[in-house]
Amino acid sequence: MPRQPAPDDDPVPSADAVVDLGPLSTLTGHALRRAQIAVAQDFQRTMAHHQIRPAQFSALEVIKLNPGLRQTQVSFALGMKTTNFVPLLDELERRGLAARRPIQGDRRARGLFLTPRGHDLLARLEQLAAEHEARFTARIGADGKAQLLGLLYRLGDPAFDPPRD
Amino acid sequence: MPRQPAPDDDPVPSADAVVDLGPLSTLTGHALRRAQIAVAQDFQRTMAHHQIRPAQFSALEVIKLNPGLRQTQVSFALGMKTTNFVPLLDELERRGLAARRPIQGDRRARGLFLTPRGHDLLARLEQLAAEHEARFTARIGADGKAQLLGLLYRLGDPAFDPPRD
Repeated sequence: MPRQPAPDDDPVPSADAVVDLGPLSTLTGHALRRAQIAVAQDFQRTMAHHQIRPAQFSALEVIKLNPGLRQTQVSFALGMKTTNFVPLLDELERRGLAARRPIQGDRRARGLFLTPRGHDLLARLEQLAAEHEARFTARIGADGKAQLLGLLYRLGDPAFDPPRD
Repeated sequence: MPRQPAPDDDPVPSADAVVDLGPLSTLTGHALRRAQIAVAQDFQRTMAHHQIRPAQFSALEVIKLNPGLRQTQVSFALGMKTTNFVPLLDELERRGLAARRPIQGDRRARGLFLTPRGHDLLARLEQLAAEHEARFTARIGADGKAQLLGLLYRLGDPAFDPPRD
């Protein structure tokens, strides 16, 4: 919302001053975070009716594609800490979308599975995710998206890190 | 850390199974989040001795470059919610790096400034940030970085969003 500009004789920046971000604007981490926030906000708006956050969608997708994984495997695959993943999974279970069930061959272990309700919801969420994705692909083009995914993959892969002294 | 593989007769994925991420691996938001985590972790390792997180570094930088801004202006410029920014600023103030001070021309408003100690620390942090940045630039090259920043900017800018029906 617009703010009242400061008086002209105010020696400090006025309330609507353009803020100088200096070297931040060329820091990769800063640019990544800004873009990631914009994309995550669109995702959450897209999924608002179903109250699904990006991490919940990712968990449902991994459980669907890899039924029976232990929760530590799913959280590791998603790059999430177990302490963050457990409450996320609890909520999916409480909403009847996923379940922890005993798995054959190991009496102590429990694996993760989608419920029929989870499968139904995820089918709808996948359509919405595709619409969300198409909006961002339209901004940078299919070639731009392919370039972006390649660059992001190389950024995140320590194998591309040159040896340090 | 390595985990004990499941017995061979286990019908569910073994503990060291490759996890299928399916459509997640081509979702822009997922790829952004993975890369952003990798970059932020390196940043935090780089700054560990000084106990500075990326958002704290960004705040110090914006305050240095724009002395006297109100905290709402700084948080807006950084894309942070005020509720998250206030405790961050409290900590910078407690550590003697930044200060809220009355500003001329407006008796009620207080502006943000770095302390001399904040200036000294930030000079060192800027060197470390440049070393951190150089590691990631080395992974994708200077041309790759320029491409990446351009793509990220277009992703995050709604002006590039085509009109919806």
